[in-house]
Amino acid sequence: MAAATPTVDRLATAGGDALADIESLYSQVAAPLTPIQFTGTAGAKYNMGGGQPDPATLPREELADLAGELLASEDGAAALSYGEAGGFAGLRQLLSEKLRRWDGVEASPDEILITNGSNHGLAVVAQLFINPGDVAIVEAPTFMGGLRPLRQLKAQIEMVPLDENGLNVVALEGTLRRLRDAGTPAKLLYTIPNFHNPAGVNLSLDRRKRVAQLADDFNFVILEDDAYGELRFTGEQIPSIYSLARKGRVIRSATLSKILAAGLRVGYTIAPKEVVGRLSSLKLDGGASPFTGRLAAAYLKRRYEEHVTLLRDVYRRKRDALVKGIEAGFAATPHLKPAYMLPTGGFFLWLKLPAGTDGTRVAAEAAGRGVAYVPGQAFFADGSGAEYIRLAWSMLSEEDLEAAGRLVAEAIRAAAAK
Amino acid sequence: MAAATPTVDRLATAGGDALADIESLYSQVAAPLTPIQFTGTAGAKYNMGGGQPDPATLPREELADLAGELLASEDGAAALSYGEAGGFAGLRQLLSEKLRRWDGVEASPDEILITNGSNHGLAVVAQLFINPGDVAIVEAPTFMGGLRPLRQLKAQIEMVPLDENGLNVVALEGTLRRLRDAGTPAKLLYTIPNFHNPAGVNLSLDRRKRVAQLADDFNFVILEDDAYGELRFTGEQIPSIYSLARKGRVIRSATLSKILAAGLRVGYTIAPKEVVGRLSSLKLDGGASPFTGRLAAAYLKRRYEEHVTLLRDVYRRKRDALVKGIEAGFAATPHLKPAYMLPTGGFFLWLKLPAGTDGTRVAAEAAGRGVAYVPGQAFFADGSGAEYIRLAWSMLSEEDLEAAGRLVAEAIRAAAAK
Repeated sequence: MAAATPTVDRLATAGGDALADIESLYSQVAAPLTPIQFTGTAGAKYNMGGGQPDPATLPREELADLAGELLASEDGAAALSYGEAGGFAGLRQLLSEKLRRWDGVEASPDEILITNGSNHGLAVVAQLFINPGDVAIVEAPTFMGGLRPLRQLKAQIEMVPLDENGLNVVALEGTLRRLRDAGTPAKLLYTIPNFHNPAGVNLSLDRRKRVAQLADDFNFVILEDDAYGELRFTGEQIPSIYSLARKGRVIRSATLSKILAAGLRVGYTIAPKEVVGRLSSLKLDGGASPFTGRLAAAYLKRRYEEHVTLLRDVYRRKRDALVKGIEAGFAATPHLKPAYMLPTGGFFLWLKLPAGTDGTRVAAEAAGRGVAYVPGQAFFADGSGAEYIRLAWSMLSEEDLEAAGRLVAEAIRAAAAK
Repeated sequence: MAAATPTVDRLATAGGDALADIESLYSQVAAPLTPIQFTGTAGAKYNMGGGQPDPATLPREELADLAGELLASEDGAAALSYGEAGGFAGLRQLLSEKLRRWDGVEASPDEILITNGSNHGLAVVAQLFINPGDVAIVEAPTFMGGLRPLRQLKAQIEMVPLDENGLNVVALEGTLRRLRDAGTPAKLLYTIPNFHNPAGVNLSLDRRKRVAQLADDFNFVILEDDAYGELRFTGEQIPSIYSLARKGRVIRSATLSKILAAGLRVGYTIAPKEVVGRLSSLKLDGGASPFTGRLAAAYLKRRYEEHVTLLRDVYRRKRDALVKGIEAGFAATPHLKPAYMLPTGGFFLWLKLPAGTDGTRVAAEAAGRGVAYVPGQAFFADGSGAEYIRLAWSMLSEEDLEAAGRLVAEAIRAAAAK
């Protein structure tokens, strides 16, 4: 085909571009935005930055086979066409069954919304509730993917601390009471009960029940983010807040990114049908991909449970390798060892630097050794947290993780010596 | 693996669900929403409802081959991992080259944002500019995918009519002047210059230049939606407003849905780098799929131009078959024939029913004959337009389209007789 390049005759009436002119037109939400800054950890030799699953465990061959089968099947045309606003019904059916068997969560297919990754779901749930100035409560620390939409919507963000049993519910109640007394009651609580990102802790059963009760007492919605719950190395599964609370109190966010493949962008949000309908209307993206939705469904059918079992083993070994490196690195200088709790699942080790250590200096020393991670400030709504660092053990090999743990120890020692 | 189903002990403190309680918590944007109603045309024998590409032309085998090659290649792990916020860089590079060669549009890869379909892009652009009450101008008629986000954001929506040369720029100027005088200047104009959805018309070159000039004179942003521009059956390509206006004045929306596969959800938005950065920050979905982005890139490299040539021929024949059926159907009753213009590309025939014909009755008569389409009211911001109907020739076979054209004629005659 001849490529017809039209002759272009740009308006000559004005010099320069119109970018300065349109600045005054940005919406209140958009005006303060700057392009997302990602922690530039991709180039590091020992990259413990993002919650990126282990590339070696990605089921590439199976997905290639399944894609071939799907596109050759009678469902192949539907996979490449516009689909349902809520996402592929067959996937929602399989997720409904998985939720019942694995998670003790009762959700019919029309109580599940497929999104373009779970971040997308978190953003749309925030839109569902937050007007500028509305109060949202987050954990301190919390996941930046949950913080970002709240900030964008100009929520008043309140922080409640965590301890080794998760969200401190006494502090939560105090905050709820204070907010109510001030005439600014909280609308939404964002919480990560399983293998917390970044803190690695689990919310205890008693506290889950208490949070559900408080939601009734103070009339707020709980956004329960469970990206890592299936990656449990040890211990018993704790029922979700979704299954403990009254229906309608909790919107649950989950994803196939950590188990199957983040690149397929398949997240799912669980809520009563009416709420799912509203979320679906809000999101306006023409529906999640019918192609990746069908691929995910085919994988769920064929091999999901076996793969989860494999991944639990893989990530447990990785955690152990990282911890071994860190412990070895501090064997001679135990007074400089950061405080940490051994997570029983997930992707993250959350270190508290010894008092007086300069986090910025540690990061610089680590970078000089080829080690990258995310500094603690990214996880606190108020930008505090410089004394913490989050190490993701998900991507590196066990050998590299052990080496990286020793190098982190070196970096902390070097920073302390300056 | 043993599926551990936790024992669940729902809060017994309150009967019933909490749905009524959380109603008071919805945001101003979300409170008025109802679940999206899709025109339930999928079950019809002659479905001329949505702008769904012809299933028979979907490159299923090629995509299966490309998926297999991709996942086996050294890029396979990246395809299944988290990717760039702006979308796969290789796809943006190829689109940049395509835009230059095909569309006369100069856009570097960092001036292109990959979205989860172009509807997603339209929604995010609206968020970039619209506060509640801000004025947006749309064409009458226009595409509902452009209207929805403006409505959701509570824009004041103003309509400007079209004629056979597209948007009436004299009426546009009058509207802009009136709005400015009223102290509510327009911020954004949403326009579809090529093979308009639903009206099928093209915006003339002179008018494109005039629109670009008016944007400078009145300081507004043009959202130029070009989903169908490549599907040109006859005539010369007209330069885009993007290429005619000063840089920064126009944000251009495009998609691979109509050429490659809607199910991959690959749309792209073209704007200056700074604007792309803001859009990327607003959209908060973790970036478009690195997997479908790479598939689309592989297809663009291998076979895109050849496929466009094929599709131009396919859709021209379909248009002709539908028009043949309609003309034959009215041969004996020319006074009842709807007014229409023969589109020179795209997917849609836009009929104006003869005066006095009840559009609702026509739709019922058509449904009784197995014929489905979208009634005109869907395309007017104020819900007017009952005298119009939009027929999509994209999905059906030529044979079915000719039959469907005759049945539409029958339906109109039957409605007129009642």
